[in-house]
Amino acid sequence: MTMATITVPEPVPSAAEDAERLFKACQGWGTDEKEIIAVLAHRDATQRKQIRLAYEEHHHENLIKRLEKELSGDFERAVYRWIFDPIEREAILANIAVSKKFDYQVIIEIACVNSPKELLAVKEAYHARYKHSLEEDVALHTVGELRQLLISLVSTYRYGGDEIDVNVAKLEAKTLQDAINLQEFNHGEVIRILSTRSKAQLCATFTCYKDEYGISITKALATDSPNEFAHALRTAVRCIVAPHKYFVKVLQRAVSKVPDEDALTRVVVMRAEKDLKVIKEMFYQRTNVTLEHAVGKETSGDYKSFLLALIGN
Amino acid sequence: MTMATITVPEPVPSAAEDAERLFKACQGWGTDEKEIIAVLAHRDATQRKQIRLAYEEHHHENLIKRLEKELSGDFERAVYRWIFDPIEREAILANIAVSKKFDYQVIIEIACVNSPKELLAVKEAYHARYKHSLEEDVALHTVGELRQLLISLVSTYRYGGDEIDVNVAKLEAKTLQDAINLQEFNHGEVIRILSTRSKAQLCATFTCYKDEYGISITKALATDSPNEFAHALRTAVRCIVAPHKYFVKVLQRAVSKVPDEDALTRVVVMRAEKDLKVIKEMFYQRTNVTLEHAVGKETSGDYKSFLLALIGN
Repeated sequence: MTMATITVPEPVPSAAEDAERLFKACQGWGTDEKEIIAVLAHRDATQRKQIRLAYEEHHHENLIKRLEKELSGDFERAVYRWIFDPIEREAILANIAVSKKFDYQVIIEIACVNSPKELLAVKEAYHARYKHSLEEDVALHTVGELRQLLISLVSTYRYGGDEIDVNVAKLEAKTLQDAINLQEFNHGEVIRILSTRSKAQLCATFTCYKDEYGISITKALATDSPNEFAHALRTAVRCIVAPHKYFVKVLQRAVSKVPDEDALTRVVVMRAEKDLKVIKEMFYQRTNVTLEHAVGKETSGDYKSFLLALIGN
Repeated sequence: MTMATITVPEPVPSAAEDAERLFKACQGWGTDEKEIIAVLAHRDATQRKQIRLAYEEHHHENLIKRLEKELSGDFERAVYRWIFDPIEREAILANIAVSKKFDYQVIIEIACVNSPKELLAVKEAYHARYKHSLEEDVALHTVGELRQLLISLVSTYRYGGDEIDVNVAKLEAKTLQDAINLQEFNHGEVIRILSTRSKAQLCATFTCYKDEYGISITKALATDSPNEFAHALRTAVRCIVAPHKYFVKVLQRAVSKVPDEDALTRVVVMRAEKDLKVIKEMFYQRTNVTLEHAVGKETSGDYKSFLLALIGN
């Protein structure tokens, strides 16, 4: 938990006590949001699960459903996303991303930031929850080359080891360069390389690319004209080679003049228990503003308090 | 084990005794192939593994390597394929299929006959053994639309449940019919449906297809002109909806006038511990010849004795 930003009290109260505090916070006319934050924002995934079980046992009611009734707006959405354990949460985030407003960026994040085994666990949680596969839902909302890229990224079960083949790296850096030269981002070879190679191999290939062509692959993929497919490719590359840097950029955009609460909530809840500390430091190095300050400026009320608690303020 | 054809003696000797018998069978000038068959063809996967471990422990030598030295030809290949446990064997068979002589039929079999969880286990065994993914090797040996189909079938992690959606089945039967009408077998939708839908859903879709268009999808996919892609599609459909029937056809072809020992060995070793009894019965119903008779006629020597022992003669 060293790179996590959430703080858990020592000693931590029992799940039954926490469930009782939440039950009381939801009683009567007003809801005690501060109390909900004080409990939930300071418990890790295992503890939150125990609290949900204790709540259900003592009050014969689903805690998540109850909180959905009591809370509203951005705060409700943030608590709802936070309360699940990481794998189930990503299955839910993926499902939200393939619902009404299709958001391919989230799909790429989940497919490419996670390790092969984590992605698999997310897909299993998706099966269990929605009774069909994530691939099916991605296919439903996309067409053409973007569909092919997304399905390939979601489907693949990459090799997770560290072994790399330098010759393959050189060869495939050239293949990528050929496609980029021709502005054929949708070339079958590009999708094949990005979706089947191990992350270690891809990092080696992108390093070769930079050495050979004097420009990073992400810069080379940047086009003047808006090109959704090239943007999706770049997102995938960045999620694979530099996820922290990628999340810093998402956060920067999320707290910009056109704020994006969904993205802000997503990154904070997804990374708070994992590596938000690293992302926070990189955010500061890059912007000279602390993440707490930036988030505090763009948000308000219980939503703000909750996010700041997760960020470890 | 009720649908298996192999027979295991009761009580089964200890792994140490079996290892000793195999050690003696490999001593001296000649190898005692009959003894090797008597032991190995009558032990299940767990027992074979115990024997390998006992052999290694007592003789500081790898049993598989030793047998490769002692045996030769079709018999050696059959023993080599048989001795592994089913998941590891399929990883090896897949690797053989993407080596020198590329054989997409085997890839489709492994991708489509196995349950989603079994396929995943095969892919994990492939990672562990070859230090890269099956997807990468498939990509290396294929191009164009066949590559896209094969990678999609190998990559996918289908939903494994029984729930189906009748409306989706109707809609996608129509989508398939449209592609078949236009002879556009390589249509993106066809690959998408075949590679992302659950097997239960696909069976429902193919049933709708037959009800609506009066012809089975496999018949509709049969073309007069040789078309590798359409053939691959048909193989996938048959492996998904009727694997036993599919294996009967593979066996029929393997013992025909142009015999195919690789296919014969593959189907026998892959299914002997699973469902070869069912396949045997279907083979007889279809050809009026017992599988034992057909195999006995086309094979000879130790290879013949070994296969017949696995078939449960």
